[in-house]
Formats: sequence, structure tokens, C-alpha cells
Amino acid sequence: MTYCVAMHLSSGMIFVSDSRTNAGVDHISTFKKLHVFHRGDDRTLIMQSAGNLATTQSVINLLQHRAQDATTQNLYTVSSLYDAAVLVGQTLKEVIARDGADFTATFTLGGQIRGEAMRLFHIYAEGNFIEATVDTPYFQIGESKYGKPIIDRIVSYNTGLEQAVQCALISMDSTLNSNLSVGLPLDVMIYHAESFDDSRQYAITAQHEYFSEIRNMWGSCLRSVFDTLPPLQLE
Amino acid sequence: MTYCVAMHLSSGMIFVSDSRTNAGVDHISTFKKLHVFHRGDDRTLIMQSAGNLATTQSVINLLQHRAQDATTQNLYTVSSLYDAAVLVGQTLKEVIARDGADFTATFTLGGQIRGEAMRLFHIYAEGNFIEATVDTPYFQIGESKYGKPIIDRIVSYNTGLEQAVQCALISMDSTLNSNLSVGLPLDVMIYHAESFDDSRQYAITAQHEYFSEIRNMWGSCLRSVFDTLPPLQLE
Repeated sequence: MTYCVAMHLSSGMIFVSDSRTNAGVDHISTFKKLHVFHRGDDRTLIMQSAGNLATTQSVINLLQHRAQDATTQNLYTVSSLYDAAVLVGQTLKEVIARDGADFTATFTLGGQIRGEAMRLFHIYAEGNFIEATVDTPYFQIGESKYGKPIIDRIVSYNTGLEQAVQCALISMDSTLNSNLSVGLPLDVMIYHAESFDDSRQYAITAQHEYFSEIRNMWGSCLRSVFDTLPPLQLE
Repeated sequence: MTYCVAMHLSSGMIFVSDSRTNAGVDHISTFKKLHVFHRGDDRTLIMQSAGNLATTQSVINLLQHRAQDATTQNLYTVSSLYDAAVLVGQTLKEVIARDGADFTATFTLGGQIRGEAMRLFHIYAEGNFIEATVDTPYFQIGESKYGKPIIDRIVSYNTGLEQAVQCALISMDSTLNSNLSVGLPLDVMIYHAESFDDSRQYAITAQHEYFSEIRNMWGSCLRSVFDTLPPLQLE
């Protein structure tokens, strides 16, 4: 399994991914699921992947390889994120058609291409996709349920990037606690609107002090909040 | 879908169920999923059901009907909750065999029979079952994922009944917000150890003041807790 969350907020975008893959509980590995396509100050594209690892690796490989040929339509030549989503969707369909319909995958694709605003897409195994909006500014792929309630309670389009990352980390913590097939390290990327930057990438291991601190703090704060709830009145 | 949670704690047991059934999003109904078998001061058994409504109704009907015949092994004559779980499992297998393997269901069965301690079982469609223990004092059936993290953070075997109900209600709130096929009213039952009582049953509708109050309070408290988290440090 996998858990990735991506948010398109007014001041920028954030991406948080786990890195565990598994072929059964007795066969787990670590693979990064966050991939960045960055060129000069022209574009920063961030992809997250969930699903069959052979499929997602092939899609990323083909996208990277084809991006070397400047005469073709590729992630470095497309003029909009919509066209980038079409390209990723087509490549995903191509790999699934080649390898077999059982080996499906999904992607998030977000970022910014000069000349347009930031955009965020959720790309399905069928190659089609939906776009995040002000009403629903985030997407999850993989094991989404355990970590969804906290995002719905905290995040809206105008949430700041720092609080959004904190919320994504708490959401990830809930998921890590509940699903063994989601595992550390985490990959975090923060993109500030109009920065065309790719430098704010971070890896969070089990020894990461800040992550440990807010995991513990969140757990104890929730218990404190419970103690302040008004006494049960059911009649 | 359905969301039911049952907890076996040191001082008693709590049961909280939603009441929505659906055959597609355009065909929803309200059916109580919490069923009580109570006789004098000898036994109080509480069942919750999830899955195909035709199956769960048939199982409850057969259990109720057969309980009229005092010469048979039934829920009012079995001498232990283990035997009650066997009986429910057999009845469930019988109905599924009669109606078809696509119409599966699961149950929780908890309570107390005089002569033994409280017990709580999770009964599968195959008719077998597991029992809650001090390590894992609760079971969920139906849509369990959205509401699981908060229970894992708050509830342990020694949690008080009042706080356990509060936690189950918050867990239900998270699930109601995320899955349209889980819906109000809720049915709540609290059983105090050694009471052999069935009187503490409550229905919670959308107009229920206390439930509305803690739903709102919980949401705003979580946001306050987020504001107190230490500033993001990812390096």
C-alpha cells in the first residue's frame, strides 16, 4: 500500500508521501514515491505514485527518458499542467496496456508552469484525471481513509503551508499507526507559489526530532481535549 | 454501509451504531442495527449488525423466534457468551447458505451471562469469531477506517465508560463526515459490569444537543491544538 497526500493552497503546494512498498507482509521495501521534474525557472512538476511498483516505475522512467528529446511533447515542453496530466495519463495507460490490467496505479501531479497558476491533478489508472479546486484543495492516493478526517477538519484553501504540512504529518501518523503497509521514511516537498523552486524537499526518518515531537504532542493534546469535553448527557 | 463500534472495558461495555442502510446512494433507509436480548437479572446480550440487511434481519429474526422455545439451545438458555457466539455464528452461516454467498454479514455480540464475566465477540460471515481482550478491547464492523485512529489514541481497557462513549461519538462523527452511507440516528447502549440491566439505551438524532455540542467543540478544539504545535522544522 501507500499513502500520499498533495494539497493546492492559496500560497503554495505541499506533498507528503510514505515510502513503503510490499508484496505481502513478509516482503517490504523502501521506494521513494515522490518525483520532481524541474527545469530552470520555467517549471516545477511534482508527482506522487501509488499502486503497482513495476507500473509506477515504468511510467516515471518513460517520462524521464522521453523528456530528453526536446523535439517531442514531454514534461519539459508541454505548455500547461493540463497537458502534462494528459501526458502522464497516456503514459500510464500505455504501461498498463503493455504489462496487464491487474497492474494498475494512480498518480498525483502538481506544480506550476510559467504562464499559468499552480495546478494539482489526480490521475486514474484509466488515464483520465480530476483537478483540485478551492472547494476540495487536496488529493490523497493509496490508503486514504485513516488520515482523511483530520485533513477535513483542519485544511481549507487558505490554510498556511506550514500548518498544512503539520496536518499532513498528523494525517500520516494516523495512517502509519493503522496500516503496516504504510511506512517511514516520509518524503515532504513544499512549493511556494511563483517560486519555480524545487529545493524544499525533506526526508523524515523514524529518528526525525520534529516529527517525533509533534506525534507525541498530538497524542497527548488529544487526550487533554477529551478531558475538557462536557460530561456525557444522553437523555 | 454501516459503522458500529463495541468496547469491552474494565467497568462495563459500550455499543454505538449508526442506522443507515443503502442499496445505492439513491436508495437509503433507516434500520436499527443494535439488538438487545435481555431476560430478568440473568443475562443481557447486545448485538450489532453490518452487511446485507436481508441477512442480518433474518439472523435476528431466527434468534428471536427460536428463543421462544425453552427446550432448545437458544440465546436465553445458553450458559456462556461463548456458546451464544457459536449460536449466532451457526445461524449466520445457515442464512447465508440459504440466501446465497453474496449476502454476507458480520456481527458484534457482547454482554454478560450470570456466572461469568462480560465478554465481547466479533462474528464473521463464516460463522467463526474472535474475542476482545485487554490488549484490544474494542471491535468495529462496517466502515471502520475513518473512525479508528481516534479510538486507538484515546481508548484502553481502563478507560471510563463515559469517556469511551464520548470517543465513540467522535469516531462516529469522523465517519459520518466521510462516508455518506453511514447516517444518523445513532443507537447507544451502555452496560455496567454485573448490572444485568438493559435500560441504558439512547437514540441520538441530528437534533441531539449534546452530540451537536461535542461535534462542534471537538472540531474547534482540534484547530486550537494545531495552533499550539511547535513551528515546522524539517531540516
